[in-house]
Amino acid sequence: MAEADNTIFVGKKPNMSYVLAVVTQFSDGQKEVKIKARGRSISKAVDVAQIVKNKFVKDVNVDSLQIGTDTVKTEDGKELNVSTIEILLKK
Amino acid sequence: MAEADNTIFVGKKPNMSYVLAVVTQFSDGQKEVKIKARGRSISKAVDVAQIVKNKFVKDVNVDSLQIGTDTVKTEDGKELNVSTIEILLKK
Repeated sequence: MAEADNTIFVGKKPNMSYVLAVVTQFSDGQKEVKIKARGRSISKAVDVAQIVKNKFVKDVNVDSLQIGTDTVKTEDGKELNVSTIEILLKK
Repeated sequence: MAEADNTIFVGKKPNMSYVLAVVTQFSDGQKEVKIKARGRSISKAVDVAQIVKNKFVKDVNVDSLQIGTDTVKTEDGKELNVSTIEILLKK
């Protein structure tokens, strides 16, 4: 899972940790930041993108938005489908 | 909030209720169905779209995908921002 530095994976931390991570990327000079999440964290990823766009980095837009499905193996060998989202914010 | 018949609002019911609602729209002859959700239900809306697309209506695609913010007034008069998603599935 090698990803460029400008990808933020949204998980179980509070929203503002991820907002801060995205804002930091932009203030470090990145022109685009990708926000990724799976399963229940998808709602949080949308919150993070909207908070960044509306409150912190006003010249940023949602450049692309994708949803998909990942197949995950559980510990007992079952396969589970998990929804994913990728939100690309661009200056 | 007058909306065309082909809009499904995803809320607190189990995923499969909404999957069934979307599949019914398509089998009634709709060429496109819009799935909307707010807040924590956003993850569920993505699940619903993916399940419809991968398991039930295979000739359907995500035609457009939008995220936004709604402002909601709580009972004690405070204003809350809630993220929203709109997923347009099209044959």
